[in-house]
Amino acid sequence: MAEEGSNWVVMVTGRSPTNIAVIKYWGKRDEGLILPINDSISLTLDPIHLSATTTVAVSPSFSRDRMWLNGKEIPLSGERYQKCLREIRKRANEVSDEKQGIKIKKEDWERLHLHISSYNNFPTAAGLASSAAGFACFVYTLAKLMNVKDDLGQISSIARQGSGSACRSLYGGFVKWAMGNNADGSDSLAIQLADETHWTDLVVIIAVVSSKQKETSSTSGMRETVQTSALINHRAETVVPARVLKMEEAIKNRDFTSFAKLACTDSNQFHAVCLDTSPPIFYMNDTSHRIINLVEKWNHSEGTPQVAYTFDAGPNAVLISPNRKTAALLLQRLLFQFPPNQDTDLSSFVVGDKSILQDAGVTSMKDIETLEPPTECKDKVPYQKFMGDVSYFICTRVGSGPKVLTDETLALLDPITGLPK
Amino acid sequence: MAEEGSNWVVMVTGRSPTNIAVIKYWGKRDEGLILPINDSISLTLDPIHLSATTTVAVSPSFSRDRMWLNGKEIPLSGERYQKCLREIRKRANEVSDEKQGIKIKKEDWERLHLHISSYNNFPTAAGLASSAAGFACFVYTLAKLMNVKDDLGQISSIARQGSGSACRSLYGGFVKWAMGNNADGSDSLAIQLADETHWTDLVVIIAVVSSKQKETSSTSGMRETVQTSALINHRAETVVPARVLKMEEAIKNRDFTSFAKLACTDSNQFHAVCLDTSPPIFYMNDTSHRIINLVEKWNHSEGTPQVAYTFDAGPNAVLISPNRKTAALLLQRLLFQFPPNQDTDLSSFVVGDKSILQDAGVTSMKDIETLEPPTECKDKVPYQKFMGDVSYFICTRVGSGPKVLTDETLALLDPITGLPK
Repeated sequence: MAEEGSNWVVMVTGRSPTNIAVIKYWGKRDEGLILPINDSISLTLDPIHLSATTTVAVSPSFSRDRMWLNGKEIPLSGERYQKCLREIRKRANEVSDEKQGIKIKKEDWERLHLHISSYNNFPTAAGLASSAAGFACFVYTLAKLMNVKDDLGQISSIARQGSGSACRSLYGGFVKWAMGNNADGSDSLAIQLADETHWTDLVVIIAVVSSKQKETSSTSGMRETVQTSALINHRAETVVPARVLKMEEAIKNRDFTSFAKLACTDSNQFHAVCLDTSPPIFYMNDTSHRIINLVEKWNHSEGTPQVAYTFDAGPNAVLISPNRKTAALLLQRLLFQFPPNQDTDLSSFVVGDKSILQDAGVTSMKDIETLEPPTECKDKVPYQKFMGDVSYFICTRVGSGPKVLTDETLALLDPITGLPK
Repeated sequence: MAEEGSNWVVMVTGRSPTNIAVIKYWGKRDEGLILPINDSISLTLDPIHLSATTTVAVSPSFSRDRMWLNGKEIPLSGERYQKCLREIRKRANEVSDEKQGIKIKKEDWERLHLHISSYNNFPTAAGLASSAAGFACFVYTLAKLMNVKDDLGQISSIARQGSGSACRSLYGGFVKWAMGNNADGSDSLAIQLADETHWTDLVVIIAVVSSKQKETSSTSGMRETVQTSALINHRAETVVPARVLKMEEAIKNRDFTSFAKLACTDSNQFHAVCLDTSPPIFYMNDTSHRIINLVEKWNHSEGTPQVAYTFDAGPNAVLISPNRKTAALLLQRLLFQFPPNQDTDLSSFVVGDKSILQDAGVTSMKDIETLEPPTECKDKVPYQKFMGDVSYFICTRVGSGPKVLTDETLALLDPITGLPK
């Protein structure tokens, strides 16, 4: 190893996706190790639109571990960060940086300090599982820096200890978090059910719902549910195991009808057990309910699901369509009922894969105003419009898992100083 | 019996209370007989503030059965009305009207026609279980007219076939609807746990919440829950039986702490199984959630329940305080957070037992504007105000069961013509 005091910096930049559960994780059997009371299944979302990027750097010149999140320094002293750091350091191996002529020996990792900078390409305030992408990226990128040889499943088990659902962000495509049986949590990890090339027709539209309510954190929320709900055990022990098997089948067979029914009912049941908690937890608001009603009415009128919805611990809707055509029809309905405030421009109101907008025939704000009411509402009470109740829409798809970004210009730390650029 | 064609009219006027369940009825095991999947428990509300009044008249001059609800003629052909009519007629006995010198023989009731007029002293649109009071009054008053000898429990079993929860309106005070075991429903009936003199300190405040949403009827809602919820059976078979026993104890001992905890958790669980229905049913809206949060925050800050809440198949909150002092503190909090629209006057914004207003120190609209934020909110984010989100408040109490109104001026039908006055 190069001597102490020398000012070399070795760094790696990684990017990890976020994910959205379609069979929900809610409730831990072990708070410390973050072991869940049931399996869960998620879709990994395209990191182009929703991901965390993290640069981790090591240098003998660093006097302590430091971290920056979205440009702002944050303490690394939290138990969750410390656990992940400890577990990764334990598995560190020798690293050679031939370009710089540096060799870091296995035992050096225990005393070398780290700088870590992480950035989300989507608003953290939006309640879009930023901690899942963040911890997945933290652990994945550290593992790359330290030349950890464990497979992704084992890495996911470490990410799990940062934030439960982070383990599912270690793979692209369709992912199961197997709850596991071992007391030490070693078998509570992510398993890829199918990669992102398996079912490429799916289109995901996220409605970011305006909310003034302060929400219950999912950590304390699920603790209270486990402690007080009279229904959560029945859900975890009886309902979810059967649904997980069916959801695996639905994904395997690209069976959208089954997929949609399972995703919607499981989202609703997750919110039901939140409501069955004392005091009750409300994550969905009137706007969330209206989005569900819009989808249910449409699905009912067509006789078969056109769209699946799922809601995490907040009011945002994640809507999944079987193909671009249905996604365009969905976007028309959403824009009709939830038009933007007058001062909004279209390019900031629909973000991500904007080509869906073209398919929907909407290229200007004026096009939104002239949208026709959906056919399933004809001859009925005219649809009420709720201007501004959705802040913006993100159009995206199922995407790939974490990767190392080799383009050095994407690094978040300066290669000389090891400080944020 | 006086001859056909003669124009005598014999009539009876009755009044029946409404009731609010604190252990909820949701789900039928027999749709036709209206047999529930679990016991339920309710408080009967004071008929002075919330009741149905019904006049039933019989005359040989009537050519067919007719009914008026709130002054408007409605068809009596519905199966539920017909069932109640049939069951009461079966049990009819000889009646003598000595003043008019009329004797109606038992067998005459099969061919004599009825006029029925019913009126609710509260807005039907408010979603305050008008059908419970209505069917209880319909059956009770018919039974009086026809000199039915069955006890109130047996009468309640007939009212049940009009509207399930109507059976609980046959008694004052605290009432259990025993689900029963018999296939013919004969043991599915109301039992009085304690009369209205048992626990007189309780104060009930109903927040009538503005809602633009069309709500799912409870009949179709509970059918869909039974057909699709994966949690309803666990609720009905395991959770409710234990809660019913505890609630009976709490009522017997006037144990408000237990009463409040059971009432709140059971209301929330009822709404949880609604949410677990496919498609999901939402009866509570953002205003309902805010009222719950207000109560939960206050209860939490005091360390012991100050108020119980319960919500039926709609957004209205029924809030139960252990005494007038707490009720006044509750009303202050409610008026602070949900002030009336500017054009409202106080006397129509707080109705029923207005003496609670005096206790709360509110005698004018100006007093509402100058209310201080509740102490549990000091040093916190200032409470947001939601003007107009509650349409009005009804202050009431636990009250008495059905009775015959002997004051003839209260009859809703003309004693000569048998038509609505």
